[in-house]
Amino acid sequence: MPAATISRLSIYSRCLAQLEISGIDTISSHELADRTGINPAQMRKDLSYFGQFGKRGVGYKTSELNKNILKILGLDHEWKVAIVGAGNLGSALSGYRGLKEHRFIVSAVFDSDKSKTGRYCGTVRVSSMDEVKDVVAREGIEIAIIAVPAEAAHWVANQLVAAGLKAILNFAPATLIVPEDVKLRNVDLSIELENLSYFLTNKDREATVENA
Amino acid sequence: MPAATISRLSIYSRCLAQLEISGIDTISSHELADRTGINPAQMRKDLSYFGQFGKRGVGYKTSELNKNILKILGLDHEWKVAIVGAGNLGSALSGYRGLKEHRFIVSAVFDSDKSKTGRYCGTVRVSSMDEVKDVVAREGIEIAIIAVPAEAAHWVANQLVAAGLKAILNFAPATLIVPEDVKLRNVDLSIELENLSYFLTNKDREATVENA
Repeated sequence: MPAATISRLSIYSRCLAQLEISGIDTISSHELADRTGINPAQMRKDLSYFGQFGKRGVGYKTSELNKNILKILGLDHEWKVAIVGAGNLGSALSGYRGLKEHRFIVSAVFDSDKSKTGRYCGTVRVSSMDEVKDVVAREGIEIAIIAVPAEAAHWVANQLVAAGLKAILNFAPATLIVPEDVKLRNVDLSIELENLSYFLTNKDREATVENA
Repeated sequence: MPAATISRLSIYSRCLAQLEISGIDTISSHELADRTGINPAQMRKDLSYFGQFGKRGVGYKTSELNKNILKILGLDHEWKVAIVGAGNLGSALSGYRGLKEHRFIVSAVFDSDKSKTGRYCGTVRVSSMDEVKDVVAREGIEIAIIAVPAEAAHWVANQLVAAGLKAILNFAPATLIVPEDVKLRNVDLSIELENLSYFLTNKDREATVENA
């Protein structure tokens, strides 16, 4: 299964949630694909990895399909998240409404600058890096976000791994190495911009790029 | 061509740049694939959309392949970027070293809060939203980043489109509608986290997920 399938599940789920709000109970697979901008064959293939959804000629029940997808994504309960780095990015993330809406609760913010300890980053008190292990265990934190400068990122990742975290989202423009049982996802903001520079440079070619 | 190909080109380019720095002149397609965590068949397919690179039995010349990829991505020159929103996220982005490194130059920051006009966000003076059209034209800005709260995002997108911008990166958790000739890319930070919650929920299944 391609990793992109998982991101597309999130997109289907957002669309289905919108449909539910609009009071639309059932939707054909073509229409759901259309609304998400993903091609119908791709969508059916994505869903087929997880079982049989929908009925031929009837389509999908929006709330049922969304419930199933949320369960697949592990979103049938909340996740506690720690942010490392109480700078601008950490502050932006701790106040990012989209996280809470999707049941990711920022439960701790850490910073290695001890002058920041005890201050508030959004509604969360900043803890020092010495406290990572204790706070992670006490709060039941399972996901960490690295929002520190590139040169500090590797040290931070090591601390998070040592504290037993198995899932890390890294915003620092640095290549991190983590043990095999830890899932590391890198958000490289310049890659997003490179998609746009590609588009501006190859406007004619773009007509053939699928949404994915 | 799948849109994910373009993101993978960015990943190949970063890896090739590292190899160049390390003084490695040529690399086999298997080794390049290995270092990027992308499967070799996928990598060859991605590159094949753009021509014939490398020689059978010799591999790729790192600097030549990287130069070609950078050209495909439109990165053989700088791009001027505007950020809308001088809050925490806008400030984080304007100071994000990864952008400048990849030749995206933040040349303007806008905010609708006039009390912020004239202040500095990183090294860039904040302009008011009334000035978008003028500043975009004067500075030669081609890409805009939306870093405002969800409820302001649609209005901001309309202003950017009216100013003639054709490429927008949106960080607001809002579904924006733009004309067909405008490329909109949404960065939904909760989707990144959902990838991690999926992983934590389905650790056994994960073994079969390809890197992509």
